[in-house]
Amino acid sequence: MDKVGIGLLGYGTVGSGVGKLLRKNAGDITLATGKQVTLRRVLEKDPGFSRPDLDPALLTTRFEDILEDPAISVVVELIGGTDAALDFQLRALKAGKHVVTANKQLLAQHGAELFDAAEESGVHLRFEASAVGAVPVIKVLRESLVAAEVNTVFGIVNGTTNYMLSAMAETGADYGDVLKEAQRLGYAEADPTEDVGGKDAAAKMAILSSIAFHSRTGLDDVPFEGITKISSTDIAHGARLGLVAKLLGVAKLIDGRMNVRVYPAFLPQAHPLAGVKGAYNAVFLTSDAFDEIMLFGPGAGSIPTASAVIGDIISVVNTVKGSFVRNCLCYKDLPFFPDADMVSRFYLRLRVMDRPGVLARVSALFGEHGVSIRSMVQEGGGDEAELVLLLHPVREAQFFAALQQISALSDVHGEPAVIRVEGEA
Amino acid sequence: MDKVGIGLLGYGTVGSGVGKLLRKNAGDITLATGKQVTLRRVLEKDPGFSRPDLDPALLTTRFEDILEDPAISVVVELIGGTDAALDFQLRALKAGKHVVTANKQLLAQHGAELFDAAEESGVHLRFEASAVGAVPVIKVLRESLVAAEVNTVFGIVNGTTNYMLSAMAETGADYGDVLKEAQRLGYAEADPTEDVGGKDAAAKMAILSSIAFHSRTGLDDVPFEGITKISSTDIAHGARLGLVAKLLGVAKLIDGRMNVRVYPAFLPQAHPLAGVKGAYNAVFLTSDAFDEIMLFGPGAGSIPTASAVIGDIISVVNTVKGSFVRNCLCYKDLPFFPDADMVSRFYLRLRVMDRPGVLARVSALFGEHGVSIRSMVQEGGGDEAELVLLLHPVREAQFFAALQQISALSDVHGEPAVIRVEGEA
Repeated sequence: MDKVGIGLLGYGTVGSGVGKLLRKNAGDITLATGKQVTLRRVLEKDPGFSRPDLDPALLTTRFEDILEDPAISVVVELIGGTDAALDFQLRALKAGKHVVTANKQLLAQHGAELFDAAEESGVHLRFEASAVGAVPVIKVLRESLVAAEVNTVFGIVNGTTNYMLSAMAETGADYGDVLKEAQRLGYAEADPTEDVGGKDAAAKMAILSSIAFHSRTGLDDVPFEGITKISSTDIAHGARLGLVAKLLGVAKLIDGRMNVRVYPAFLPQAHPLAGVKGAYNAVFLTSDAFDEIMLFGPGAGSIPTASAVIGDIISVVNTVKGSFVRNCLCYKDLPFFPDADMVSRFYLRLRVMDRPGVLARVSALFGEHGVSIRSMVQEGGGDEAELVLLLHPVREAQFFAALQQISALSDVHGEPAVIRVEGEA
Repeated sequence: MDKVGIGLLGYGTVGSGVGKLLRKNAGDITLATGKQVTLRRVLEKDPGFSRPDLDPALLTTRFEDILEDPAISVVVELIGGTDAALDFQLRALKAGKHVVTANKQLLAQHGAELFDAAEESGVHLRFEASAVGAVPVIKVLRESLVAAEVNTVFGIVNGTTNYMLSAMAETGADYGDVLKEAQRLGYAEADPTEDVGGKDAAAKMAILSSIAFHSRTGLDDVPFEGITKISSTDIAHGARLGLVAKLLGVAKLIDGRMNVRVYPAFLPQAHPLAGVKGAYNAVFLTSDAFDEIMLFGPGAGSIPTASAVIGDIISVVNTVKGSFVRNCLCYKDLPFFPDADMVSRFYLRLRVMDRPGVLARVSALFGEHGVSIRSMVQEGGGDEAELVLLLHPVREAQFFAALQQISALSDVHGEPAVIRVEGEA
C-alpha cells in the first residue's frame, strides 16, 4: 500500500490534536484514501521538547530534516506567525510538497506569494482550519458552490469575541471584567489584541472573500473594528430594542465589486446568528442560486481544528500526481466597493445636555445630510441625558459627515457610540 | 483543453436547472477544473419534448445515444423512480461512465448494487442532491469529517412537512387545510404520500447514515412515521409547553450499533432546529471531536438542487483517471440497535372520561412498567376531558407496553397521540 509521510511543524494545541487524530483514525483514513498516512517528523525549536504522547524519535529542531525527507509529501504548518512560517511554507511548496495550514494571518498577508509558489510546483495549499475551525466553509465554497455565484459571506468568525459579547449580554458585566473572565477560562489569550481588535476575524474574512468571490483579498483590503468600544450600556439599550450585539465579518459582492469588513453590529433577536452563543462560529452564504446556507460549529479548539486539518490532508492524499490543482481559484481581479458608498443602518448613542433645542439641532443636521431617523429615545436628564437613535438605511459617507458635525455641537459630550444594525428586513 | 461531455437524463425541474447553470457558469467551471464541461445529450422519453432554453439537437429518446457516446463521461440521472433509473445507472456505471444523481429512493433501495457496480468500474457515483438539496452534507461527511467519528446525524430533511408544520403552528389550521394550501403553493405534490408519510425523509436518512457511519443502511433499515397523525390540538398543547413539532430524521451510533428512524418530535422553542421555518432543511452532526456542526439551507428547488448536482460534476471532473475512488465508504458492517431498547422522552395525549380514579389507573400502569411521569395536565371535563402527559426518559419497550394497557382501559377513548420529545438537556 502507498505510504504518505506527514511532516508536522509545531506540536502545540492543534498540532498535538492532529497527532492524536492521525493515530486514532489511521484505519478510517486508510479506508478512505487507500493509503497509509503516518506522522513521520515533528518540528519543535526547543531541543528539550517532549510530550508523553509523542515518540521522541520523530522530533527534530531542523526544518531541513522535513524538507529533505523524500518520504514526506505533506507538510502541515501549525507554528503560526508570519516569519518562519512563511519561509517554511515557501520552501516546502517549492520542493514539491503539499502544504496544509491553519495560519490565517500568513495567508491573509502573504497569500499571493504562497499561492503562486503552489501553482508553480503544481502542489496543493490547503487551509480549511484557517477559517472557521471544524466547519468546512472553504471546502463548501471551493467545491460545492462553484456554480452558485455566492454574493455574500456574513457571520461570526471569532469565538473569543462571541464568548465575550454573549457574557456581557447575559450578565450585564462590562467589557473589562468579561475579558478577565475569558482569559481565566482560556477563551481569550493573555494578549487578546488580535481577537478583540478584529484582526483575527479580518484575516478570516480576507480568506473567505478570496475563495467566495474568486478574487484575491488580503488583510490590507479588510477594514476592521473590534469590540473594545462596546459598552454594557449599548448592549442594554440594544436588548430593549430587541437587538443583540455580535462581531460580524461581512463580505459582499455589489455589481462586481467587493466590500469586505469586520465590525460590531446589532442583529434582531430572532436572527439565526443572534442565537449563536459562546465560542461557536456561524457563517451565512447567500446566492441567487440557493438563497441562503448557514454553517455552524466550533470555531476553534484543539480537536475541532485538528479535524479540519485532517480533512485537508485527506483531500490532498486523495488526489494523484498530475491532477489539476487550483488552490485559491482567484482567477478574477475584482475592484473594491468603497466603504463610504455602502448603505447601512446605524444605532447611535449620544450623551447630551438636556437643554431645549438639542434634539432639534441633532435632527436638523441629520436632515441636512439626508439621514432619516427611525426612532429616537431620550433617557435621563441634566448632564447625564442620553439620546439613543436608530436610523434608516443611509450611505455611510452621509451618516459620518452628519455625525462629525453633531459630535462638534457644544451640547454633545464625549465620543458617540456607533453600531451598525444588520439582518433586518 | 480537455472536454467533458455530460449526458443528462431528464429535463424537468432539476434537469433544466442543471442545463441553465452549466451554460451560465461555463467559464467558472472551466477555471475551477481546467476542463470544458458541456451538455452533450438530453434524454426525454417524449419524442415531442421541447423547451425554449434547450437546443433540440441535444434531445434524444434513446438512452443508447448517451451510453454509446464516447465523448460523454458523466451521466446525470434526474428522471427519478426506481425502474428505468436503476437500469440506466447500472449500464452507465458498467460502461465506465461516472454517475451523478439526485435519486434518493433509488440509492436507499438499491444502493448496494449501484455502489458495487461503481466500485467494479472504478468510477464515481455521486449523490449530494439526493440528501439535503443545496446543503453539501454528504461532501462534508465524506471528505471533511473522515477522522471525526460522527455519532449522530439529526435534523429536518423534508421541506414539505416542515412547511406544513410551520403553517399549522402559525395559523392553528388543521393538517388537511394546510396540506391543501401547500399543494396550491407547490410545496406539496398532488400525491404527497412520500413526503407526509416520511418515506422521503427515511430514504435521505438511509443515505446520510451510510455515509456518516460507514455502514450500509437501506430504506428497509429505517422505520418511518410521518406527520399525518399530527393534529392542531397537539401543536397547541406543545406550544403551551414551550415545544415545537418537527418531522425529524435521527441517526444515532450507540456502542457500535446504528439506530436510524424518522418520526415527528417536539423540540424546545429555543432549540436551533425549532427556528427552521418553511421549506428549509437543517442537519446537526455531532461527534466527540467537534461537539456539533449544523448545516442549514434550502432542501429542494430547481436551482438549489441543480447547484448540488453541479458541485458533484465538478468533483468528478476534478479527479483524473486512476485516482482512488471510494464512493459509499461503507467499509463497516454495523448491526442495528433495536428501537425497543432506545431511550426516549414522550409526550402523550389521552382522551379520558372524567371519572374518579382514571388518573390513578393511568399513573399506576405507568408505574408498573417503570415509566416516570414528569408532568400531567387534565383539561376539560366529562366526555371531552384530555390528559396531557410529559414523561421522563424511558426505554421505548416499557413505554409502549404501558401504553397498550392504558389504551385498553374502558375510560380511555380513541387512539392516544404519542410524540417523542427531543433536544432537551
